[in-house]
Amino acid sequence: MTRTLPPGLTATAVVAASSANLGPGFDSMGLAVSLYDEIVVETTESGLVVEVRGEGEGQVPLDRTHLVVRAIERGLRETSVSAAGLIVRCSNAIPHSRGLGSSAAAVVGGLAAANGLAAQAGSVPMSTEALVQVSSEFEGHPDNASAAVLGGAVVSWTENIAGAARYAAAPIRLHPDITLFTAIPAVRSSTAETRILLPDQVSHVDARFNVSRAALLVVALTERPDLLMAATEDLLHQPQRAPAMQASAEYLAVLRRCGVAAVLSGAGPAVLALSTRTELPGEALEFGRQLGFSVARTPVGRGVKWSSGVAVRP
Amino acid sequence: MTRTLPPGLTATAVVAASSANLGPGFDSMGLAVSLYDEIVVETTESGLVVEVRGEGEGQVPLDRTHLVVRAIERGLRETSVSAAGLIVRCSNAIPHSRGLGSSAAAVVGGLAAANGLAAQAGSVPMSTEALVQVSSEFEGHPDNASAAVLGGAVVSWTENIAGAARYAAAPIRLHPDITLFTAIPAVRSSTAETRILLPDQVSHVDARFNVSRAALLVVALTERPDLLMAATEDLLHQPQRAPAMQASAEYLAVLRRCGVAAVLSGAGPAVLALSTRTELPGEALEFGRQLGFSVARTPVGRGVKWSSGVAVRP
Repeated sequence: MTRTLPPGLTATAVVAASSANLGPGFDSMGLAVSLYDEIVVETTESGLVVEVRGEGEGQVPLDRTHLVVRAIERGLRETSVSAAGLIVRCSNAIPHSRGLGSSAAAVVGGLAAANGLAAQAGSVPMSTEALVQVSSEFEGHPDNASAAVLGGAVVSWTENIAGAARYAAAPIRLHPDITLFTAIPAVRSSTAETRILLPDQVSHVDARFNVSRAALLVVALTERPDLLMAATEDLLHQPQRAPAMQASAEYLAVLRRCGVAAVLSGAGPAVLALSTRTELPGEALEFGRQLGFSVARTPVGRGVKWSSGVAVRP
Repeated sequence: MTRTLPPGLTATAVVAASSANLGPGFDSMGLAVSLYDEIVVETTESGLVVEVRGEGEGQVPLDRTHLVVRAIERGLRETSVSAAGLIVRCSNAIPHSRGLGSSAAAVVGGLAAANGLAAQAGSVPMSTEALVQVSSEFEGHPDNASAAVLGGAVVSWTENIAGAARYAAAPIRLHPDITLFTAIPAVRSSTAETRILLPDQVSHVDARFNVSRAALLVVALTERPDLLMAATEDLLHQPQRAPAMQASAEYLAVLRRCGVAAVLSGAGPAVLALSTRTELPGEALEFGRQLGFSVARTPVGRGVKWSSGVAVRP
């Protein structure tokens, strides 16, 4: 039975960016990074007001098609509540279309904000597992969504159960010696477009290459950061995408020549570098600037947080 | 400069069986199991005497083509020593052509025995890394060899360095709640034959399925044995081999229906089951017997051990 929420309830969600497809871990391994979007949602008598500040401002639709709104509405249905009207305020720090999981963050943040509302109506909020499942359904793959839900580093996977995709994820403990750097270009990309570049078939040899490296990446991330270079090699998506994003491919090559384990972040064009050094080599920083990347040390991101509260008008 | 060993030196190596290709971890993930071959080698004035007791007795050649002899001779070259003559005594517990790494054990055991001789001539024995490299060169893949060298569970991988294969392996800590069971059929198999059944090409979808499961298998083996069922799923080699070994395929299916994470051991036909229970379900044991498998709880194997000593004639 669906309960209608009274007007004047507020909830807040804070959700991190994420790098997915980590090196060999296509569609599976993800890492939250500490760029955060904040969503504040308030129930009203009727209608929908969407405000966006920061990334996406003036670019994303401010109606029911807005991804955060769709996620909030899905979250309300999942928790058996509804709202007559909503005000949704988004303060975005995660750049769009760079391969940093802004859409996963929008979905996870929207679902978490719905949890914050539902809890005030006495509904049971979605569990972590449910957040992974529902957000991955939006995405079609679980790696960004899982990282945004759980924070830190995750291994995610998809099971086919009676024709339906069941998404799941396991957190792994990132070794404390590993420092992350994000290199974000001014140029946008589209995961949908770049995914088209991937071949339907790959050689068995290349498949087992990635299998060995994906297993090794879990070892490297958790216990053996000295193995990060070998563990981040990939033959299944990065080489195929290189022609579509030459600056990223070039920067990856430069970083790796400098001994820094760099991977494409998601479907790019951002680059994620993992290192046991706390600074990137000067040469790598200089090249990054020349290639148009904004390069910064970026701590690992936390899992999504949501909170409830009656709206306090400013 | 090669030194010739005096007659009368003895060395002993003890080396474990291994399961490779663990589920999704084709050519990469391996696990030593506690069935041990022992090799005792003695230097003589001239000639070659090979004795084999136990597995392979009366079946393997007793000349320079014997795999243990080839490995000893390779090991002597690697350590810059040579022997005018050799007596090689093999006491074998690892069944041949079952997918339990008997050839990897022969190679690793032979190399380790050579280490035991070389050490007595003041030569530097091969390191663990060198044992992995040289034994994997014999095998053409590093997963059995690495498990036999290191013991326990390993992730192994191959790097192409200037056209040459460099093999490496990282040990992982098996979770103490995991119990192993081997199911060994009376029927023999041949890795060379069954490898032919694997396709040259696989779908990108299947490749990334195995990528996610291989990453998950490291998580399951080390931290999350509750995830072993999902973590041992495979689309790259087990389904393709099923028609060539129907009893193994059927037993795998029975074990998995019973909730036991079973995989083909190597290229089969043996089956390895991983469980957090200390006994297999009665139904699974009964089926195993009916299908012709000898099923036993088998502790994890130790890494190869070698020792030196002047021969004491019995």
